[in-house]
Amino acid sequence: MRLFDMPDSGNCYKVRLMLALLGRRFERIVIDPDAGETRTAEFLALNPYGKVPVLEVSPGEFLPESNAILCHLAEGTPYLPAAGMDRARVMQWLFWEQYSHEPNIAVARHWLKHLELDEARRAELAVRQEKGRAALEALERRLTEADWLAAGRFTTADVALFAYTHVAPEGGIGLNPFPAVRAWIARVEDVPGFVPLSA
Amino acid sequence: MRLFDMPDSGNCYKVRLMLALLGRRFERIVIDPDAGETRTAEFLALNPYGKVPVLEVSPGEFLPESNAILCHLAEGTPYLPAAGMDRARVMQWLFWEQYSHEPNIAVARHWLKHLELDEARRAELAVRQEKGRAALEALERRLTEADWLAAGRFTTADVALFAYTHVAPEGGIGLNPFPAVRAWIARVEDVPGFVPLSA
Repeated sequence: MRLFDMPDSGNCYKVRLMLALLGRRFERIVIDPDAGETRTAEFLALNPYGKVPVLEVSPGEFLPESNAILCHLAEGTPYLPAAGMDRARVMQWLFWEQYSHEPNIAVARHWLKHLELDEARRAELAVRQEKGRAALEALERRLTEADWLAAGRFTTADVALFAYTHVAPEGGIGLNPFPAVRAWIARVEDVPGFVPLSA
Repeated sequence: MRLFDMPDSGNCYKVRLMLALLGRRFERIVIDPDAGETRTAEFLALNPYGKVPVLEVSPGEFLPESNAILCHLAEGTPYLPAAGMDRARVMQWLFWEQYSHEPNIAVARHWLKHLELDEARRAELAVRQEKGRAALEALERRLTEADWLAAGRFTTADVALFAYTHVAPEGGIGLNPFPAVRAWIARVEDVPGFVPLSA
């Protein structure tokens, strides 16, 4: 399998982490959006939406959307419960991640790390950080009552949420107020097969 | 089953449409966020995230996140392929809807219908409308090559994308430039069991 990848992207890292957990071998093809490499005709032919990650799941079959890739890879493994409420709760967290968590925490991190911020963008940054903290409060509540997000064990939901949560401080969103989140980060890092973002 | 519902919300409508397609009976409990009804202790006890829709899938078991609810209801039915790339493509569209479509089209519609817009909000509205049009262009490309979004048939992906696409004009995003999208809207409205948003 070939992964069209951006080393510092949490969405790409989710996929690398799942592949590592599953012991799947893959080829990394690094794409640089800042150099226009997601806008070439060659790349748009395999993902018309011009975004990474994209996983070539079988020859000529290209799948975008990080959480859809996670579901596809995890199907039939212990990382994705087969049915019922355990499965529904994993899906609940995956959709919540894309709507309420990533657009705030990942975007704040991207702006702080990679962009020059004018005044309007600084105001918007503060809004994203505030919403990011609200997302972390929701995670904190959940992880105060349970060790893992869903199904009583480490699942795809933890993989998806770990990716940007553990680097939230790079978006100016500190983790000190969230002890249960910090303890969960340590648990995820202890899971057999774990690889860090910068591996 | 009880659905905690907001009549004009596309996210709630997705769930009502799926329940209708499946011929499932349910009780509608209308919640008014503007009257603070998603912030009461009673509501937060069943969804700590304070949002609708929430479906009580079995007594005392409350599931939020519209697309997670759709997946849960559609599992084991023709609306959600059981495995492989057909399933992966449905999931791809569902995650894309929550990240690239809903935050632009649904938000533009909500602001235009329900809020007084100051100057800053008007500028942000224009940005959301522009991104909403980009999302419709992506849909148009897909629906020019196929009648349905995934799996060669009407699926959960079409239910999720239909909800806010067909009311995009209420967000100031006209559908005239998108003939394939308009033809698909007519096909969805012809599916046996279809119910409109305002039913």
